[in-house]
Parts: sequence; C-alpha cells; structure tokens
Amino acid sequence: MDNRQQTRTEEVMAAIKARAAARQLAPGDRLPSIRRCAAAMKVSPSTVVEAYDRLAAEGLIRARPGSGFYLTGHGLPPLSLAQPATPRAVDPFWVSRQSLDAGPDTLKPGCGWLPPDWMPNEALRRGLRSLARGGDEMLAEYGSTRGSLPLRRLLLGRLAEEGLQLSPEQLLLTGSGTQAVDLVCRFLLQPGDTVLVDDPCYFNFRALLRAHRLRLLSVPFTPTGPDIQAFEAIVAAERPRLYITNAALHNPTGASLSPQAAYRVLSIAAAQDMAIVEDEIFADFEPDPSPRLAVLDGLDRVIRIGSFSKTLSASVRSGYIAARPDWVEGLVDLQIATSFGGPSPLAGGLIADVLAGGGYRKHMEEIRRRLAQARRAVAPRLEALGIRPWLMPRGGFYLWCRLPEGVDSAELSRLALADGVVLAPGNVFSVAQTAGDFMRFNVAQMREPRVYEALERSLLASRRSDRPAVGARPAP
Amino acid sequence: MDNRQQTRTEEVMAAIKARAAARQLAPGDRLPSIRRCAAAMKVSPSTVVEAYDRLAAEGLIRARPGSGFYLTGHGLPPLSLAQPATPRAVDPFWVSRQSLDAGPDTLKPGCGWLPPDWMPNEALRRGLRSLARGGDEMLAEYGSTRGSLPLRRLLLGRLAEEGLQLSPEQLLLTGSGTQAVDLVCRFLLQPGDTVLVDDPCYFNFRALLRAHRLRLLSVPFTPTGPDIQAFEAIVAAERPRLYITNAALHNPTGASLSPQAAYRVLSIAAAQDMAIVEDEIFADFEPDPSPRLAVLDGLDRVIRIGSFSKTLSASVRSGYIAARPDWVEGLVDLQIATSFGGPSPLAGGLIADVLAGGGYRKHMEEIRRRLAQARRAVAPRLEALGIRPWLMPRGGFYLWCRLPEGVDSAELSRLALADGVVLAPGNVFSVAQTAGDFMRFNVAQMREPRVYEALERSLLASRRSDRPAVGARPAP
Repeated sequence: MDNRQQTRTEEVMAAIKARAAARQLAPGDRLPSIRRCAAAMKVSPSTVVEAYDRLAAEGLIRARPGSGFYLTGHGLPPLSLAQPATPRAVDPFWVSRQSLDAGPDTLKPGCGWLPPDWMPNEALRRGLRSLARGGDEMLAEYGSTRGSLPLRRLLLGRLAEEGLQLSPEQLLLTGSGTQAVDLVCRFLLQPGDTVLVDDPCYFNFRALLRAHRLRLLSVPFTPTGPDIQAFEAIVAAERPRLYITNAALHNPTGASLSPQAAYRVLSIAAAQDMAIVEDEIFADFEPDPSPRLAVLDGLDRVIRIGSFSKTLSASVRSGYIAARPDWVEGLVDLQIATSFGGPSPLAGGLIADVLAGGGYRKHMEEIRRRLAQARRAVAPRLEALGIRPWLMPRGGFYLWCRLPEGVDSAELSRLALADGVVLAPGNVFSVAQTAGDFMRFNVAQMREPRVYEALERSLLASRRSDRPAVGARPAP
Repeated sequence: MDNRQQTRTEEVMAAIKARAAARQLAPGDRLPSIRRCAAAMKVSPSTVVEAYDRLAAEGLIRARPGSGFYLTGHGLPPLSLAQPATPRAVDPFWVSRQSLDAGPDTLKPGCGWLPPDWMPNEALRRGLRSLARGGDEMLAEYGSTRGSLPLRRLLLGRLAEEGLQLSPEQLLLTGSGTQAVDLVCRFLLQPGDTVLVDDPCYFNFRALLRAHRLRLLSVPFTPTGPDIQAFEAIVAAERPRLYITNAALHNPTGASLSPQAAYRVLSIAAAQDMAIVEDEIFADFEPDPSPRLAVLDGLDRVIRIGSFSKTLSASVRSGYIAARPDWVEGLVDLQIATSFGGPSPLAGGLIADVLAGGGYRKHMEEIRRRLAQARRAVAPRLEALGIRPWLMPRGGFYLWCRLPEGVDSAELSRLALADGVVLAPGNVFSVAQTAGDFMRFNVAQMREPRVYEALERSLLASRRSDRPAVGARPAP
C-alpha cells in the first residue's frame, strides 16, 4: 500500500469515528455499504474495505457475514493506560516497577540497564530486515525445544572460548535470564528448601525466591566474593540446596570473585553437595575474564546462566542455561510444561544474527570504554554529595555506594521519586536488611545534571525530615 | 556490506578454518596480522577485520587486545544438535517433544498448530520491516510491566467486541498462553491444592499442573461442555480451587460450551467459590462466538487467557491474561519476579502491527474456510480406516476420533513415529486414563497421502502385534 492510499484509508476511518463520536451513528447501526461509502467519500472500494477492516480490528465496528458492518459502540475506553500510582512499600518490586513503568521524563540511575542509544540498534535493525527475508518456519513456528540452532551454535563457541567445552545437550535457550533462574529453581528445589544468596544480592533474586516459597539465607559479600568463613559456617549449619551468585561483576557491588574464593566456594559446595547457579549476565562487561565457578567445576554442580538483555537488547528477550546433560533434559521438560516450546525462534534468530555479524566485539569494546569513562565522571560527583563508592569496579555499570551518615536510602528514594528520579535503595538488595545506608547507582544513566540536583535536594529533605525524630528520641 | 564483500569475507573465514582443520595452525598460534593476511589473500584490510571478528564470534579465534588474534582450538564440537532419540514413555511430553523437535521430513498430524504456509507471513514480514524503522526504545528496552501498549489497546477493543468491557488495569501481556496459565497457577494455588480439568483436556495442562505439584481431578467432557452432574458432584465433594477449560473449540474435542452448561458451571463455581481459567486460544477459529464464561461472569472469578500462537505466529510468542484488577496487580509482580519485565516489546509491537493492519479478519476468514474444507476432506479418509470422529467441530483444526476396536493409541503412535508420523494418542489428554482408544488429529497437517499410508501400516502392525498377547490371555 502506498502512502497516498494509507492516508485515504485513515481519512475514511477518521470520518466514521467522528460520526460515532457525534452520535450520528449509534451502537448497533449498520454502516454504509462499501460501495456507498466509497462513492460518498470519493475513494476506491478497496480503501473502504481496508478502513472497515482496521476499524473492526480496533473493535469499533463488527462484521456480520453476509450482512455488512455494524457499530459496536465499544470504541476504546477513554482511559490512560498508565499505572495507578498506588503507594507501595520500598521493596524489590518497587524498584522494578518504578524503573520499568517510568515515563519518558523520569531519570533512572536506579535501573539495571543501559540507555537505549548505547545499544547496537543498527545491527538489530539489520537483523530484523534479514529475518523479514527469512523462511516461513522461522516466522511462524514454535521452533525446537532447546531454542534457535544458530544461536546455540554461537553460544557453544563463545563458552568454549571461556574454557567451557559443552556438548550441545548441555545448552538450553530460555525466554530471559530470569526465566532461566526460575526454571532451575523449579527443577532443583521444593517449597521450604533453603537457598543461599549474597548480601547484598540482585534484588530480583529475592522476589523470585519468595515466589518459590523458599527459605532465604544470605552470606556477607566482600570485594573478592562471599566471606568464606561465614560461607563455610552457614553452608555446614544450614545445608542450603542452592547458592545463587554472580562471579563476574557481582550485582550490586561490581566486585568479582578471586581465584581463591572461587576454589573455596566450590570445595565447600562439593563437601555439602550444594548446587550453584552462576548468573553471568554481566560477564561481557569485564575487561578480561575473572575466575568462573562453572569453568572450574566443569558444569558438574554449577549451572551457568546468561542473557543478552544488558549487552544487545532487553526487548528481544533471550537467556540461556548451561548445565549437566541430565539436568538440561529435565529443564527442557519443565520449559515445555510452563511456556510450551522453547524461546521465540524469531528472538533467537535475531540475537544470532547480531552476534554472528562480527560487530559485537567492537560494540562491547566501545561500551566498556564508555562505562569506564562514566565511572570516572560519576564517582567524584557522588563523592561531592558525601556518597562514597564501596569499591571501584573493574567494569559494568554499577557503583555500590555508602550514603552520608544518618541518611536512610529508602526514604531518600521516596523523596527522589517525587522529584522524577528512580533510585535503587540498599535494603532491596539485602536479605539481612543491613544495607539501609547503601545505594546502587547506574553510571550509564547519570549523564543529566538533574540527577545530581535531585539527589542533593532529596539528601537535604531527608536530613530535615529526620530532625524531629532525632529530637524525640531519648538521650542515649 | 554488499554481496561481493560478503563473499570475500567468507572466503577469508574458510581459508583460516581450512588451515586450522589441516593443523597448519595449532591452538595458541597467532594468526597473520590483518595487513599481512589482506596482502596474502588480495582483499582489503576491512574484509579481514570482518572475517576475524566473525571467527571470534564463532569462538574459533580470540582477540588479545594489543597483541592480535590467536587460534583457540575450540572450534565447534563436531556433533549434530539433534535430540538424542532416547526411549520415553508416551506421556504429554512425548507429544510435545516429538512435535517440536521433528525433522523436516516428519509429518505431524498430532501437533497443535497450523502449517507455516497457512500463517500471515507477508504481514509478519511487513511488521518486521516496520519495526526496523522504529525507535531505539522498542528495539532495546525492557518495556513496561504490562507489555506493549499498542497491543493492549487493540486487545481491549477486541475483547469489548466480545462483550468484555475491561479497564486497562485488567489486562496483562505474557510470554505465551502457557505462561499465562502458569502465572495464574502460581498466583492462585499452593502445592497440594486441587485443580479440576476436563477429561479429555489439553495435554500440556497436565504437564503444567504436575510441575506445580497440584492434585489433579477431571470431569468427563460432553459435546456441550463438562458433564454437569459429575461437575457438580466433584466440585461439592473435592472443593477444587480452580477449574481450567476452553469454552470455545475445546482441545482436544473441538466441542463448545452450550449456554446452559456455561450458566450451570458458573453457578456451581460461585456456590463453592472456585476460580476458573478460560483458555480461549482457539476462539478466533469459531465461525461465530459461543458463550464465554468470562463474559457471563464479567471477570469476577473467571480469568480469560489468550494467545496469538495459533492464528498469527508461534515464533513471536505472546499471550495475555484478562482478570480482576486486584488479581492482575498480583500477576504483574509475579511476572516481574519470574521473567523480569513483561513480555518482549518487540514481540508485542509485531503482533500489534499485524492485528492493526486490517488484514487479520480476512486472514482468519480464509483460515476458517480452509479448515472447514480440510475437515470435510479428512473425516471420510479416517472413516475409511475405521477411525471415527467423536463429533464434527464447528471450527478449529482438531478431530477427536475413536480408533477401531482393540487398537491402543499409544502403541499406534509408537509405530507411526517409526514411520515418520507424529500422532497425539488419547491418554495423554486424559487424567483418568480413559481415552486409550482415542486419537487427536490436526486436519491442517494431513494433506499428504503419506499420513494415511503410515496410519494404515501402523494399524495393521498394531493388530498383528496384538495377536500373541490376545492368544496369551485367559479366555473370558
């Protein structure tokens, strides 16, 4: 259809809508016939057919076979589709919902992804055009249970480069990295089982594990991995079935596992027969690879999870699981039962197209360069507000920071939200609730001066609102 | 990149691979520099850069910054990615896996979808091209928690046309129809709870509910819906928390709910405070709409599930839930916890583009016409083999058939699979295991004479293999 016909179709649609809005057509009324409408509006009958079809698709009119088109009176409800601004506790969902449903004017230093203009959008566009030239199967069918073959081939190569030689039976694509962790929990755990996470840890692990009705324990995280003494004690005493962590650029701290910690974690897990999920969603942001539990272990008790949401596109939605063949076999069944089929062949094909294109390495080099620059630029601006990074990470986009003395990060986040800025307060990352004076910042989302202005205002307001409470406390 | 450069890049890649295969390059060896390789192969340096990048993406070589490219020796494992042909029980997973992982030469009258060339592939291709022209946000970001706004707007209109006036808070997009049912189960149920399904019912409901560790009961299904007396008795006696069904073109029988049955089912559910999931994935295949529980009930205790996998594309993967606002609010949190974010904005945008295009109504009219024709053509051919439809459905692609006396449908399915034909034997649909002499056929997948030849051979072999067993039985 050319642009002129497109415009005419829209004119016919607008005319019908205007008549309905002006009550010249009432619900149940028959629309003029195609022929009569075409004559009245001086357009071709095919333009009217197209306009009526589109109005039917919108639900405004309805076809009765052999009889014509009738006004339904249903139109679209005259409501905004925005989320209701219900007051909610500042919990893990608070951060997810505020970040995901933020309007275009909201700034999001608390979110967990890069700005859209950092992503390889031209490669994605080329990929979409290439899929548009592809076969019917790729467009129409469920695809195989383990997901897109071209993407699995590429992943096998990339994992081999890290030192993980997998058989194809050990790899399963999923709908997202989170869905991958979800499937593993379903496969390995039962409600009431004990799971160990880091403190702090990625806040959505807490939400996910709560959805599974699991018992959650946490181990303090240090700049080189979990506190090994605490880890050993808690694993021996509580016998968790599973430990979930990130070895590379841990979320939220940005720390990476040391070789010694990696070895000790694995030995302790082996001694107590505990499985480990290693979520390596930030691995490609490392300047060079840190030790990986999955590689040391050879995927015996460690399950490797990955995703392309942080590096290529969060819109395309694709993750993967690498694990023991017998576990993957069970995970395939679970994914069929709970999603039917594997992940979208179209999504897998698109990711594979971008990865195979050869520009991915350069894209990630550029991203790493920009993030290093952003870290260097953001850290002193936060320091100037009395907000101090816990460590300077080797890569990635997070800075885990301690707030000025006496500032509560949940309160600060509430105040900043009212100022149009979404933050990620410390305790949403903490099972033990010991991170109330911490905040996770995403350096890639902090280019605008408004972020720092809002932070400064919120810090000031937070101190002011504290005063009466302090005065009301009994003297120590 | 033009085609000539593409070809040269591939030539360079092939040359490096050939040298690696011939052991002229060993793992750890440094590749020739870009400049030297370009000179040796008489191509431009940018062609070599492209080739090296693609080989790195495949894992065959690896870049060491500032030092050049090295052979990893990892290559791709020389294995086929086909599923291992392990012997499995003929259970719900058997049908799913055999259908999803079938090779191109396998015929699939047992599968639950249309052949790819029946789908609106040109509209999907136009949609992909239109997304390629779209904004960065759509390509790169997670999108809002409830999913693509254009798709939700269209769905509100379509549901209004059915008589369901929803507020936008009542609609949630999901990764698939199955994921929608899965989320609802997570939200409403706990392990050990009792759930009621039809007998027969869609086989993957059985797999899904087992994954949730639920107690499964079933009610016999009649040509007008569940057997109401049995339904009333079982609901009163067992107090199931949830009933899962399809009102329109029930899977596998193709029956639709009568108005009387719909009213009774709702009344009984209300009296015992039971929730209902109405999975309407086949609704658009009906020539005209049958009574809908969700419409009668006004989405108080009924949850409406839908998907576009059967009508537009199974590759794009998108489903939805329409329910009470407070339930949807909880489902949004659960979807964040278990998938992070909503369904793919790209998938939602693509479906919306196809639905809004106006060709959807014509596409479905054509599909319904072709399916009616296929039903008329297939039924007599099955009858000629002694396979009799339980009823002639008003629409859809299923024929639920009784096999000739004494033929076991699981045995027949095993024999047919060896002959390259995937069938869907009755008992995978039956909680009570009372459908051993039934088979579900997909009339859209039965154009090839080879289907009937294989069926005939398998029927013959199944009778032959029965004889010794019959002879061995004690006389009645």
